[in-house]
Amino acid sequence: MTTRRGTLYGIGVGPGDPELLTLKAHRLITTTRVIAYPAPDTGESFARSIVSQWLDADKHEIAITIPMRVERFPAKDVYDQAAIDIASHLESDEDVVVLCEGDPFFYGSFMYLFERLAASHTCEIVPGVSSLMASAAAAGRPLAARNDVLSVVAGPSEDATIAHYLKQGDAIAIIKVGRHLARLRGLIEKAGLLDRAIYLERVTLGEQKVMPLAQVGADAAPYFSMILIYRGAESWIDNLPIAGDEM
Amino acid sequence: MTTRRGTLYGIGVGPGDPELLTLKAHRLITTTRVIAYPAPDTGESFARSIVSQWLDADKHEIAITIPMRVERFPAKDVYDQAAIDIASHLESDEDVVVLCEGDPFFYGSFMYLFERLAASHTCEIVPGVSSLMASAAAAGRPLAARNDVLSVVAGPSEDATIAHYLKQGDAIAIIKVGRHLARLRGLIEKAGLLDRAIYLERVTLGEQKVMPLAQVGADAAPYFSMILIYRGAESWIDNLPIAGDEM
Repeated sequence: MTTRRGTLYGIGVGPGDPELLTLKAHRLITTTRVIAYPAPDTGESFARSIVSQWLDADKHEIAITIPMRVERFPAKDVYDQAAIDIASHLESDEDVVVLCEGDPFFYGSFMYLFERLAASHTCEIVPGVSSLMASAAAAGRPLAARNDVLSVVAGPSEDATIAHYLKQGDAIAIIKVGRHLARLRGLIEKAGLLDRAIYLERVTLGEQKVMPLAQVGADAAPYFSMILIYRGAESWIDNLPIAGDEM
Repeated sequence: MTTRRGTLYGIGVGPGDPELLTLKAHRLITTTRVIAYPAPDTGESFARSIVSQWLDADKHEIAITIPMRVERFPAKDVYDQAAIDIASHLESDEDVVVLCEGDPFFYGSFMYLFERLAASHTCEIVPGVSSLMASAAAAGRPLAARNDVLSVVAGPSEDATIAHYLKQGDAIAIIKVGRHLARLRGLIEKAGLLDRAIYLERVTLGEQKVMPLAQVGADAAPYFSMILIYRGAESWIDNLPIAGDEM
């Protein structure tokens, strides 16, 4: 005898604009009762805020509260407990949707739940619009074309790693800029690429910022910020105005 | 006096499943009369096929027919003519939607139209779900996490370029595999990564294939195929079953 158990859906909700949800994400969010999402220990869950218009009072919400302190991340106990909560719904034949900022498998925290639940439960990933593609759209410049090489590196990486990737390929995306902004800017300047770097934050949202990195004054940026570096761009791309560029 | 002119929308329609369109793409496609898309010189347009259920008889369709011969790509004359056709609608105050497989600015041919029209017309990019994220979802393995480095290289690149990126970082995505499959497989094997490579084709479509690269027999693959290489994967990822793996 087999019992159908609930399905765990890891759902990408895109970079911020609710209209960048996929039709599939929208369908699953509106038709599933149990909705889980990461939340900071103070303030609102960004993933939840993107879809809040579709979360009516009938939903059962599971906020996975992650302490936003660098040294504690990933917070093992929090994910252990969240996995137990989610599993109890799945084992009662209820589907569970986990909301993931951007795409679930592109630098997302969903992997910590997936790691704990994928072996024992049916799991489906619904890919979403990544901040990487949304940033290129906001910058108004193709990210990669033809046989370009694109590398994605994380802002907290060591200087040597950042410098290494700045020396090769055609486009480099630095994600998770946050408190590393001043250091990253220094490394990009040292690599002679400051005039080829675009800074973006909160893309697709009302407060979106897009500007040449050279014009960015602040020393720290929001966690959801990115630097795109067009290393080997063709001249017609260089000549495009940058969205938001005041010059 | 300023005249409002039409807006050119470069719209990502995702990797193939129509349900992976964004709500925004769906809205713009259903409310815009003039719809352009790339089409092969024989057979159906893949981008059009994804949204065909929403293209009623009232639409004015512009098929941009690209000869599928390697040596002629990009087909300058074809894009020159398409840009003239599209511009004539924009200048008549009509919006034009250009359908783009995946995401418009991630290795897409939309850049050839963007290059010709962005300086003279209002242009908005609507990012879409990329085949990169859809492939990771189909493989059932996180693409990148924490401070991983992800590099994207194109299958037609030279051996030395492919080999260079196989030696570094955490995840490598090889796109546009197509007729380069046997050569790429040889390079991956030489780098000692054959058992860490997953082959995917036509992800999110009915005929989707996902399998360990080591089990792929064919020497050529469809143009829309990808190899994901998890170079430095953690052991729990290595132990996951690959979706579609028969072993």
